[in-house]
Amino acid sequence: MSKKVLVVGGVAGGATTVARLRRLDEDVEIILFERGEYISFANCGLPYYIGGTIESRDALLVQKPEAMKKRFNIDVRTKNEVLKIYRDDKEVEVNDLNTGNIYRESYDILVLSPGSTPLKTPIPGIDAPNIFSLWNIPDTDTIKGYVEKKCPKKAVVVGGGFIGLEMAENLHALGLEVSIVEMLNQVMAPLDFEMAEIVHEHIESKGGELHLGDGVKKFEYKDGKTYVILQSGISIETDLVILSIGVRPNSQLAKDAGLDVNERGGIVVDEYLRTSDRNIYALGDAIEVVDFVNENKTMVPLAGPANKQGRIVAGNIAGRNEKYNGTQGTSVAKIFDITVATTGNNEKTLNRLGKKYKEDYLISFIHTKSHAGYYPQALPLTIKLIFDLKGKVLGAQIVGYDGVDKRIDVLATAIRFGGTIYDLKELELAYAPPYSSAKDPVNMSGFVAENILNGDVEPILWNEIKDLDKEKIIILDVREEVEREIGYVEGSINIPLDELRDRMDELDKDKTIIIYCAIGLRGYIGARILKQNGFKVKNFCGGFTTYKNLFC
Amino acid sequence: MSKKVLVVGGVAGGATTVARLRRLDEDVEIILFERGEYISFANCGLPYYIGGTIESRDALLVQKPEAMKKRFNIDVRTKNEVLKIYRDDKEVEVNDLNTGNIYRESYDILVLSPGSTPLKTPIPGIDAPNIFSLWNIPDTDTIKGYVEKKCPKKAVVVGGGFIGLEMAENLHALGLEVSIVEMLNQVMAPLDFEMAEIVHEHIESKGGELHLGDGVKKFEYKDGKTYVILQSGISIETDLVILSIGVRPNSQLAKDAGLDVNERGGIVVDEYLRTSDRNIYALGDAIEVVDFVNENKTMVPLAGPANKQGRIVAGNIAGRNEKYNGTQGTSVAKIFDITVATTGNNEKTLNRLGKKYKEDYLISFIHTKSHAGYYPQALPLTIKLIFDLKGKVLGAQIVGYDGVDKRIDVLATAIRFGGTIYDLKELELAYAPPYSSAKDPVNMSGFVAENILNGDVEPILWNEIKDLDKEKIIILDVREEVEREIGYVEGSINIPLDELRDRMDELDKDKTIIIYCAIGLRGYIGARILKQNGFKVKNFCGGFTTYKNLFC
Ligand SMILES: Cc1cc2nc3c(=O)[nH]c(=O)nc-3n(C[C@H](O)[C@H](O)[C@H](O)COP(=O)(O)OP(=O)(O)OC[C@H]3O[C@@H](n4cnc5c(N)ncnc54)[C@H](O)[C@@H]3O)c2cc1C
Ligand SMILES: Cc1cc2nc3c(=O)[nH]c(=O)nc-3n(C[C@H](O)[C@H](O)[C@H](O)COP(=O)(O)OP(=O)(O)OC[C@H]3O[C@@H](n4cnc5c(N)ncnc54)[C@H](O)[C@@H]3O)c2cc1C
Ligand SMILES: CC(C)(COP(=O)(O)OP(=O)(O)OC[C@H]1O[C@@H](n2cnc3c(N)ncnc32)[C@H](O)[C@@H]1OP(=O)(O)O)[C@@H](O)C(=O)NCCC(=O)NCCS
Ligand SMILES: CC(C)(COP(=O)(O)OP(=O)(O)OC[C@H]1O[C@@H](n2cnc3c(N)ncnc32)[C@H](O)[C@@H]1OP(=O)(O)O)[C@@H](O)C(=O)NCCC(=O)NCCS
Repeated sequence: MSKKVLVVGGVAGGATTVARLRRLDEDVEIILFERGEYISFANCGLPYYIGGTIESRDALLVQKPEAMKKRFNIDVRTKNEVLKIYRDDKEVEVNDLNTGNIYRESYDILVLSPGSTPLKTPIPGIDAPNIFSLWNIPDTDTIKGYVEKKCPKKAVVVGGGFIGLEMAENLHALGLEVSIVEMLNQVMAPLDFEMAEIVHEHIESKGGELHLGDGVKKFEYKDGKTYVILQSGISIETDLVILSIGVRPNSQLAKDAGLDVNERGGIVVDEYLRTSDRNIYALGDAIEVVDFVNENKTMVPLAGPANKQGRIVAGNIAGRNEKYNGTQGTSVAKIFDITVATTGNNEKTLNRLGKKYKEDYLISFIHTKSHAGYYPQALPLTIKLIFDLKGKVLGAQIVGYDGVDKRIDVLATAIRFGGTIYDLKELELAYAPPYSSAKDPVNMSGFVAENILNGDVEPILWNEIKDLDKEKIIILDVREEVEREIGYVEGSINIPLDELRDRMDELDKDKTIIIYCAIGLRGYIGARILKQNGFKVKNFCGGFTTYKNLFC
Repeated sequence: MSKKVLVVGGVAGGATTVARLRRLDEDVEIILFERGEYISFANCGLPYYIGGTIESRDALLVQKPEAMKKRFNIDVRTKNEVLKIYRDDKEVEVNDLNTGNIYRESYDILVLSPGSTPLKTPIPGIDAPNIFSLWNIPDTDTIKGYVEKKCPKKAVVVGGGFIGLEMAENLHALGLEVSIVEMLNQVMAPLDFEMAEIVHEHIESKGGELHLGDGVKKFEYKDGKTYVILQSGISIETDLVILSIGVRPNSQLAKDAGLDVNERGGIVVDEYLRTSDRNIYALGDAIEVVDFVNENKTMVPLAGPANKQGRIVAGNIAGRNEKYNGTQGTSVAKIFDITVATTGNNEKTLNRLGKKYKEDYLISFIHTKSHAGYYPQALPLTIKLIFDLKGKVLGAQIVGYDGVDKRIDVLATAIRFGGTIYDLKELELAYAPPYSSAKDPVNMSGFVAENILNGDVEPILWNEIKDLDKEKIIILDVREEVEREIGYVEGSINIPLDELRDRMDELDKDKTIIIYCAIGLRGYIGARILKQNGFKVKNFCGGFTTYKNLFC
């Protein structure tokens, strides 16, 4: 007799599981339950449909129930909510929302891919009719309908995560004035602060208004407008609010059934994605995963992992022993004209785990170009690479205009292989002028990292300079004189790099020289010259570009 | 006393060596000899300057002699040709082409980065005044000057390698009618034939004329025009010829000095890039390298390796033990609107080494999209992945419009780490709709490879179908009926995939079913259905898209 498999949740994780399972096994009986009206929709495309970049609503519906039946012989039951799991009976209780009929369905194997739900904290006034969350097709229809009917002029996005920022961009594209409110001092939490500052500057340059380090105290709705009152007292009048302050896993079903769930509500699974009940698998946003880099437990609500896990769960149901080896949190987002991408651990995560800069990890920080400078449209690219004292790559963050996704994917790949900065130096990446440089930015990150790890140059980071004793240092600007016209570090003296060999006797050997240039490259060359001539010298990472971003 | 280092060749390899060496060691005396007028120029940018994409000639000169002196304290001697190496005396003989003065210079360490020279075979008429090669700045000036002065209407490019095709594109951009003559049956030798066919089609769609499998017999120059007479008898009238038929290493100097040189003229070096004389290093186009994948000796004239080798040579001179671990031949080229990229070994190379399809390696071949289909401008991307029977990735070829360079870099990285197709499945690459799909094309290549390796589906390649016994097979088209309007395989029957489960009794179980769809995906799903129902079935790789490309 063939197996009977029930799957709860019909989008990224669930739909992928059933498609793969059918390919592996023609005989198994498969029922897919989805409480919403739609399965297999492109969650990630929703902001772009609202903004008009994706024109056709139909394009969002990647697979439809009837097609799923025909192609994969799946019994798809939309508007059917699974209410309860009777583990002892191996049955679930289902509410057919079409009819109100509540029924039971038996299983040999149960799969949970129920996803997550956007948080809606009990802020006063949160139920105003122009406050929305974006999570699924009905949400999308509501927001798009509201925008088309009411022609709002102003929007406030609460929450500076990637969905919030994608919405900000898309509403801006529709001509709305957009303000972003974020409780933390930065948007895009996977970035460290100095990287997020580049994003802040970009959003503001596009006309976006940022309220950082400020939370919403309350919403006041009056005459079709909402006033967003912040903790700081600031009040923003707006026609529309998008709430995007995080998600929580839909794990009540699992919890009620007595399955192990962590304190954040994540369903606990083993490396085969099996829950604490061997007949029940779980995947996607709702589960706890192993952080591939630091090996702690974490939760990473992203589509890539959900899709991969779906394929693994199907494989395991079909009797193939497939392991899920953890999530590294590789992500990318388009934010207006820039791209922001991360993989692995950032400094904040490492610090939270008690890891310390210089004792446990080091940083290679470069501003470079997307491709060879002599080929048109070589655009700025900033890479922050974090590695341990043996050189093992722990994480990377990239912000830029072009080629960001490429470099993060290369670094994500290197991390998957447990790669070191020595490997990065060696990577033989494709070069022709429209695409890269003969030394790709990833190689360059490796070179810079090696120089630091070898002790050939001592870096100094943006957050270390406040601790310097002004009496004991010289701030040396090795840019050309004309470059100082766009600004310079207060108190710095200027010796252009190319004059340094001849003029170094102007410098006091008893002091520590903090050297800087525009981005860090000339500073490094200068530091090498000085160091070999007996000076104590530190190169300011990121140069004046970073300094200006953070302090001017 | 400090060391004295002489470097022969002042561009990619040589200039990088001296810059890094100076950073490592302030004291060493460094002299850089360059027989040409320019050092550190952007070879790779030359075609784009001729075509006008790069506007400023000055942009091509990445570093100039005076700047190199000031910044790196290098004694740069342009128009100084090294004529001879006196290894016993540790001296070189130099011709100062500025003065005609011939002098000697001693060394502790000598570095050879003399590059290569474009081949100019003794074809009758090859010295006509409108036949050019492109290799350096003077060549560029000559060609650009000729184009500007003579306003040629037609050009013939002899040789379909990447430089030839870049020139074809750039001359086309200037409004010339371009023909390409190539002795092999395909352009872009690093591609296998079926991949090159995509390039052929694209070039023709852009108005380029291709003469494949045809060599030049002679050139006849008359009244400012050259007639290119091919072996086939075809005569092409043209105003301009670009010769780009390959390169040979500039290794005469090394050979004359008794250094080991291979039969193709490549200077033999050890893993530290030392020649057979421990005091002489060599790098760049002129050396023999180890093929990173098959471990045989080969020659790979590319800028990325030359630059990396330069850094290693400098390190070794400075007493750091750095190894060069071989070249995998990662490359990319923009050819009109498409991008072509390769890494590792192609099938031709494997076959030349005696490796056989199915016995030694397998192939995953997919047509996919650059990013999520529902986001605008998702463009075709074709990936050919070659892996051995344990799953180890041996090579990849990609042709497409967007995101080609990204995927080749990810695959190149995986190859560097000795990765398998199982690793490719797992790679956690960055996904948001503008950049990729939740299952990135690289993951997808891994999935397809796994299905083949596991025996879940038996693929059949384009070059296997001619051997089929028509009596023993059924060609089954599982596309929708309407799709057959754009063409179909002669003799195929049509059962749309979604009807297959109901209609499979129309098929004869004694025959082998060759299934195909548009790209291979539905064919695979159909193959799984049939196989599990007891049919013998093979899925045609690349589907009708590939079939049409090759046979229609
Ligand atoms: C606007 C937006 C943009 C995004 N952009 C990106 C992006 O660019 N890149 C990226 O990697 N990720 C992105 N994501 C996240 C990604 O979509 C999710 O990580 C992924 O969909 C999770 O898959 P899942 O199967 O766990 O959950 P989902 O895909 O959310 O599917 C869960 C489904 O289960 C159903 N369900 C829950 N409980 C029950 C029940 N009891 N009975 C029946 N059905 C039930 C729900 O209705 C839901 O449809 C985005 C998400 C959103 C909302
Ligand atoms: C048009 C063109 C486009 C290219 N595009 C790409 C690309 O997109 N991607 C890529 O990876 N590669 C590309 N290349 C190849 C790349 O430029 C070479 O692989 C690289 O420059 C090799 O470095 P090298 O140091 O070995 O030689 P070169 O950079 O060629 O330098 C060698 C120098 O040595 C000098 N020299 C030789 N003998 C002597 C002597 N006896 N005394 C003094 N000087 C001497 C020569 O004059 C020459 O300037 C391209 C090359 C060309 C010509
Ligand atoms: C639509 C959906 C059900 C498709 O699932 P799927 O069938 O597993 O995925 P795809 O259509 O991408 O097909 C992948 C399969 O085709 C195979 N394949 C792809 N190209 C192929 C080719 N050229 N030749 C042969 N096989 C091919 C792959 O090997 C894979 O099969 P496998 O898993 O059995 O190895 C699922 O992806 C989905 O619901 N997506 C929308 C929801 C979502 O993911 N949201 C979040 C992101 S917006
Ligand atoms: C111009 C040329 C001499 C420069 O060589 P180079 O100084 O080694 O290379 P770059 O200018 O890219 O600088 C790289 C160095 O800067 C360092 N660096 C780069 N960015 C940095 C940053 N932000 N902070 C600190 N250091 C940085 C790197 O670590 C590397 O130093 P290292 O090798 O000592 O580790 C050489 O590349 C050249 O001649 N190029 C033109 C010819 C050519 O390559 N042609 C073929 C391609 S078209």
